[in-house]
Amino acid sequence: MTDHSSKLAALRSGIDELDAELVSLLSRRAKLTTQVGQIKAETGMPVYVPEREKELIASRRADAEAAGVSPDLTEDLLRRIMRESYHTQNNRYRCINPDIQQVVIVGGAGALGKVIVSLFEKSGYPVAVVEKDDWSKPETEQLFARADLVIVAVPITLTEAVIKQLDALPEHCVLADITSIKVKPLTTMLACHKGPVVGLHPMFGPDAPGMIKQVVVVCDGRGEASYQWLIEQMRTWGATVHHSTAEEHDRAMAFIQVMRHFNTFVYGAHLQGENPDLETLTVFSSPIYRLELAMVGRLFAQSPQLYADIIFNNPDNFALLKRFHERFGQALSLLEKGDKQAFIDEFDRIGSWFGDYAKKCLVDSKQLLLKADDDEMLRKN
Amino acid sequence: MTDHSSKLAALRSGIDELDAELVSLLSRRAKLTTQVGQIKAETGMPVYVPEREKELIASRRADAEAAGVSPDLTEDLLRRIMRESYHTQNNRYRCINPDIQQVVIVGGAGALGKVIVSLFEKSGYPVAVVEKDDWSKPETEQLFARADLVIVAVPITLTEAVIKQLDALPEHCVLADITSIKVKPLTTMLACHKGPVVGLHPMFGPDAPGMIKQVVVVCDGRGEASYQWLIEQMRTWGATVHHSTAEEHDRAMAFIQVMRHFNTFVYGAHLQGENPDLETLTVFSSPIYRLELAMVGRLFAQSPQLYADIIFNNPDNFALLKRFHERFGQALSLLEKGDKQAFIDEFDRIGSWFGDYAKKCLVDSKQLLLKADDDEMLRKN
Repeated sequence: MTDHSSKLAALRSGIDELDAELVSLLSRRAKLTTQVGQIKAETGMPVYVPEREKELIASRRADAEAAGVSPDLTEDLLRRIMRESYHTQNNRYRCINPDIQQVVIVGGAGALGKVIVSLFEKSGYPVAVVEKDDWSKPETEQLFARADLVIVAVPITLTEAVIKQLDALPEHCVLADITSIKVKPLTTMLACHKGPVVGLHPMFGPDAPGMIKQVVVVCDGRGEASYQWLIEQMRTWGATVHHSTAEEHDRAMAFIQVMRHFNTFVYGAHLQGENPDLETLTVFSSPIYRLELAMVGRLFAQSPQLYADIIFNNPDNFALLKRFHERFGQALSLLEKGDKQAFIDEFDRIGSWFGDYAKKCLVDSKQLLLKADDDEMLRKN
Repeated sequence: MTDHSSKLAALRSGIDELDAELVSLLSRRAKLTTQVGQIKAETGMPVYVPEREKELIASRRADAEAAGVSPDLTEDLLRRIMRESYHTQNNRYRCINPDIQQVVIVGGAGALGKVIVSLFEKSGYPVAVVEKDDWSKPETEQLFARADLVIVAVPITLTEAVIKQLDALPEHCVLADITSIKVKPLTTMLACHKGPVVGLHPMFGPDAPGMIKQVVVVCDGRGEASYQWLIEQMRTWGATVHHSTAEEHDRAMAFIQVMRHFNTFVYGAHLQGENPDLETLTVFSSPIYRLELAMVGRLFAQSPQLYADIIFNNPDNFALLKRFHERFGQALSLLEKGDKQAFIDEFDRIGSWFGDYAKKCLVDSKQLLLKADDDEMLRKN
């Protein structure tokens, strides 16, 4: 071995030792956070305490600064470690309303339904699941007759039909749904059930392991006081609750879901139509484009029915999509006329509309793109 | 203090101690990697050694498994730590060709130009920058007369005009450009210069601190042997070099840059036209949509001229955009006819075209979306 290579080998084994030390540190830390989780479950303290998190990060950033270590690196590592501990150390949550005798999740065997069922179970509520084949069973009727809370968690096209079957719940029972649209289900619930009604939209997919740091939109229906415990329970699970009218919610969703999914769908159709070699495209791509391509690709690994339901659900949205199509045509005509200056003027106008948000996006997305850089998928070279 | 709260305080101070230990560990690790960086610079070993990285991660994943720590967590942390050390510990690189007397970067004061200049400097090459105002100076002519390598790093609209002024370089001098299109600059370089010519496209923006793990597309022009050292030098900087014809490159770029930027532009125009409240949209958004919205927003914080140049550069691309517009119209007509089944069939067809890539995207993007979850920007609630 040359002098250099023996020196390098020594340094590398030193690095390996430190990395092994890191693993041991993580293990010791997890033991402590598990105990914190237990105390929180017993006392009903919220799992996610933004102030504690902020303080912790600020102190460690200061330590890092003093030690000549990058504060950003330190913060990134701590956030990743905390995410893990939020998601793995919470096997129990405090039960906010121990008087509840029966929670029923209709569609609780579905992807998102399972997440909801598990959260109630971890909080000590008696939970039952009703699936398609259970409706004809006599015990299902008894189940509904003693329910204190029924949550409808079925695919969007079935929501209304399922709600209509729930017209004989006890009057004290809280009826809720978690559909990604809110006006129609809420109206139907109010018409079918005389008791407390609330529309919920958890703003996350079944991939998210729980509600920690997630947004849940709450659209009040009737008898708010009767389901206040449910809102508190979701906060205990770590959710940020956002109150809204069903109308305001659905208007926002037209942008957030319909526009996005439809545009992604057409992007996929366009790629298929043009038929480029995907492998070649990814080789030629920077991480940001690989990320965007992955966002298109992932759509088509999911249920066509689900996306058809979301997109076809509300004909009011078609007008929004049509206006996008028109604007695309207008921008194209700038290209065909070769009118670069008009394009630049339009660009500036849009930039002013975005205002400071655009600059914020640029700064903040840098960090995320660097994280994408760490990702193996996004650098398949 | 109650029993619970004193216990919690003790646990938290234990966690704080471990986190402080983490900072000290990072500081010790950085000292070792700095020494590794020095040895690599002296011996010319590549900065990024995929095998060493793979081994290191596999060993620590195994350690984690044994210690009951999540291997994924461990890998994520190590990758983040390694990214930092790649980018901060490399103040010197080995000089592959010490015979080079003069490197000239035309446009070296621009954002990406600066990155290139710095890499040459860190490798010990004599580098000079020529900017707009320098052309009239007599010393600029002398500079070009003794240049061994000239790299054109000016905005895309100026590239050809600048190349045409470089018609009196010494015949042994290597002429290269780093424009994001390749056919036109390469043709112009071959016409203006009799010596070695190569077209380069570094597939990253100026945000990326260097070339480590980045792709650089190389389009051979003439006299490959004379610029082989440059290719090796880029590898030493950590780049993955991808050879391609200029035509193949430009076809891929039509998809990668033009389609993407134009669609994002229209998305921004659409939002401005519809004028929703951005704050409300982000409140209602899941992290994935906040990420997409940020990708739109960030465009408009950048130079309109740059994007106009990229999009208007090649009229051949307009036909591609036009076909996207048509496909959007076709998909819209499915909506208007209420033909859900046709939508689903089309979805399935596109899904088959994507093949396994779609599934891979879904699995892999989960990880990245969880990382987005850690991000403060993407959870402004």
